[in-house]
Amino acid sequence: MVEAEPAPGETPERKVRDEDGAIDARFLEQVSQAVLLSDVTALRKLVAELHEADLGDLIEALDQDERPKLISLLGNDFDFAALTEVDDAVREEILDELSPETVAEGVRDLDTDDAVYILEDLDEADKREILDKLTPAERTVLQQGLDYPEGSAGRRMQPEVIAVPPFWTVGHTIDFLRETEDLPERFFEIFVTDPSHHFVGTVPLDRLLRSKRPVSVVDLVEDDRRVVQATDDVEDVARMFQRYNLVAAPVIDAAGRLVGVMTIDDIVDVIEEAGDDDVKQLAGVDAEEEISDSVRQVALGRFRWRFISLVAAFISASVMALFEEQLGKLVALAVLAPIVASQGGNAATQTMTVAVRALGTGELGGWNMARFFRREMIVGVLNGVAFALITALVAGFWFGNPTLGVVIGLAMVATLIIAALAGVAVPLVLDKAGIDPAISSGTFVTTITDVVGFFSFLGIATLLLRLS
Amino acid sequence: MVEAEPAPGETPERKVRDEDGAIDARFLEQVSQAVLLSDVTALRKLVAELHEADLGDLIEALDQDERPKLISLLGNDFDFAALTEVDDAVREEILDELSPETVAEGVRDLDTDDAVYILEDLDEADKREILDKLTPAERTVLQQGLDYPEGSAGRRMQPEVIAVPPFWTVGHTIDFLRETEDLPERFFEIFVTDPSHHFVGTVPLDRLLRSKRPVSVVDLVEDDRRVVQATDDVEDVARMFQRYNLVAAPVIDAAGRLVGVMTIDDIVDVIEEAGDDDVKQLAGVDAEEEISDSVRQVALGRFRWRFISLVAAFISASVMALFEEQLGKLVALAVLAPIVASQGGNAATQTMTVAVRALGTGELGGWNMARFFRREMIVGVLNGVAFALITALVAGFWFGNPTLGVVIGLAMVATLIIAALAGVAVPLVLDKAGIDPAISSGTFVTTITDVVGFFSFLGIATLLLRLS
Repeated sequence: MVEAEPAPGETPERKVRDEDGAIDARFLEQVSQAVLLSDVTALRKLVAELHEADLGDLIEALDQDERPKLISLLGNDFDFAALTEVDDAVREEILDELSPETVAEGVRDLDTDDAVYILEDLDEADKREILDKLTPAERTVLQQGLDYPEGSAGRRMQPEVIAVPPFWTVGHTIDFLRETEDLPERFFEIFVTDPSHHFVGTVPLDRLLRSKRPVSVVDLVEDDRRVVQATDDVEDVARMFQRYNLVAAPVIDAAGRLVGVMTIDDIVDVIEEAGDDDVKQLAGVDAEEEISDSVRQVALGRFRWRFISLVAAFISASVMALFEEQLGKLVALAVLAPIVASQGGNAATQTMTVAVRALGTGELGGWNMARFFRREMIVGVLNGVAFALITALVAGFWFGNPTLGVVIGLAMVATLIIAALAGVAVPLVLDKAGIDPAISSGTFVTTITDVVGFFSFLGIATLLLRLS
Repeated sequence: MVEAEPAPGETPERKVRDEDGAIDARFLEQVSQAVLLSDVTALRKLVAELHEADLGDLIEALDQDERPKLISLLGNDFDFAALTEVDDAVREEILDELSPETVAEGVRDLDTDDAVYILEDLDEADKREILDKLTPAERTVLQQGLDYPEGSAGRRMQPEVIAVPPFWTVGHTIDFLRETEDLPERFFEIFVTDPSHHFVGTVPLDRLLRSKRPVSVVDLVEDDRRVVQATDDVEDVARMFQRYNLVAAPVIDAAGRLVGVMTIDDIVDVIEEAGDDDVKQLAGVDAEEEISDSVRQVALGRFRWRFISLVAAFISASVMALFEEQLGKLVALAVLAPIVASQGGNAATQTMTVAVRALGTGELGGWNMARFFRREMIVGVLNGVAFALITALVAGFWFGNPTLGVVIGLAMVATLIIAALAGVAVPLVLDKAGIDPAISSGTFVTTITDVVGFFSFLGIATLLLRLS
């Protein structure tokens, strides 16, 4: 990224990020030194003007014990908004170390949505202690955000909005904006509400600016009135933003009253997280696992899924054990069986991943299910036959046994067709049953393909090679 | 999503989407009927007022031959912006069917970035034919966009921007906005440029609205001047938008002249696609594969990776074949060997996925590499020991052979440590070498764990069980 001028707080002598966009090693070293020496002057000079995103990444880069120390040293110069930019584990650790007074002082200056984000994961007692340090007015607005369910729009919205009555003109509105001191830091639209605060419509700022002063705001209201309910799931809201290219949307309560606004910068994080969750869960990693989690958290989180997969592996092995006699008579079977199983697993994983992701982004549903199913089955058969032929030829020549080639070929066709079927059916059935297919499809699907792979290969071998 | 009123074009008798957000089956049927009967009046009533996103999804839901027919029937009432919302394969198919005149007429009314998006994937001859139908002015602006490299900000930016000279006041600027007819459809900020069109700064609309008329625009310019180079990769731009919570950013050319603006709605799609690409590629599916691709495209796309994985499977099998004698003597080895290999594969996949995704989002780099490596190795050892004990116990009891339990336990420890090592090292090395780790890590890593799993298990068995 080329910048017309150094970013704020960045001087020729001080480079905050290296070419890859990571915190620059030399800069990190300087900050670390200043923290170690408790050199407040140097530290302030280094970090006081950083963007919250840079400050957040810097905090993550520091050692665990340097993080709260940096915040204490900076005092009021520390921008708590940086804590919204760090991993959950890092934030919790830091908040544990800081006094409730410091945290209360820090969140007081934040936008409400940022303050709620920082406080929401604390346990009830800590949360209460911090809220008690605030003024009643500050406390009420934070408490309202925290009262909405986790993962809802109410938690992520900004309750400070600019709402004007329908009878105001453009001129009146502009004068109001010029004269009011305490406006939200950044806004893209103003809202029109009736006297009982019910939502009437949205006026984007560019419309306001294009219109002459006597025009009534209600005439500028957008036709397209997409609104968010405060209890809506943020992932649904994200899908709506993405589908209709929204930058902001009004949030209303059950009675239709305007309670806040959601903006795209919060939504962007939701969209990235959703993709992130699918990637991780498909690989058997907790969606919550973060790059800065401790060994303990990671080891425990991964143990659970690995245990299930171990049980599944023993189930597949017990299918193989059914054919001990045949395996003993022809060792080539033991060598080739894992190939059939692993190829089935790969084919099923391809199909399953496409299905899971398409379900996740809402691309798969209703009308195109049947089309998708048919396509995957045809691809399964085509690739099944192609790979059966290749495998049959290689295996037949390798062991100088053409019948063994025929056996593995037939087993591959059968396994790859079942793999396509399982790859489509398992995620769809789980999704219908209300279970997140990203989390659970993988183990089901590979267990099915392992069992089918071993059973078909060894079963067909028993029949055709007269091994029993 | 609850809406205060039915969405535009949606009446109580006509529901466009069902509860899951997919195109409603009854609505689809009605549209399909109207297309079949060439009933233009009914069709216009059904779809003419749809949002481009709904129209795009509707087009995807129609059968292949109904799609161009719908567009021809609607004529000038068809909003070509809907074609930016459909999968690439669907768009290409439709554009092939339509005459160059129809396409030229359709893209003429679009925002430049949408028009470029629709035209960019056409082959040169088709593109030329369509551009030739436009006026020289229209053609020049599209050609400028198309001349930027694929995947660059220049391709995705909106070249129509509002730029004012530094000496203008707020009042002058507002008057200009009120009097100019041909402003961009939607904008969030205005730009200040010097007489030679060099970028000076950005003024968000809310700043303009808060300020009194005599204030000079140059005094309202944001301190934080993040700009995009037209040749920057859109994925890098997306990362910058996400990091600094941007809604729009000016795009400049190599000489520092303002050439356009990138807005968050384009960036959102880039972010989702990056997540999507990682998910698919980790499962051996082409990043370009889309839910509406044909059987042929899908079968060919998946064949390549599957072929590589088959070669890898034969390599692993040939390691097993080294121990034919031992396998023949003790069939339990054949039953248990796939367990060791598959557990190694699972552990490595967990680590690898976390690494690939963290590299993709820029969370892993520089300072935290060493920390991540150490953590993954410790987790590998801990889980290795835990799973070794479980597997050893189960296998020892199952086959009534305690030494066999010890063998599989030792093999598991060895395999899981190598798995952790490979899971971290392979993506990092590929990334350093400039190869996308999402595409290629999987096959490398599972081949390593299969080979190590089979070799360590059968090798240790040979030593401890005196099988040779």
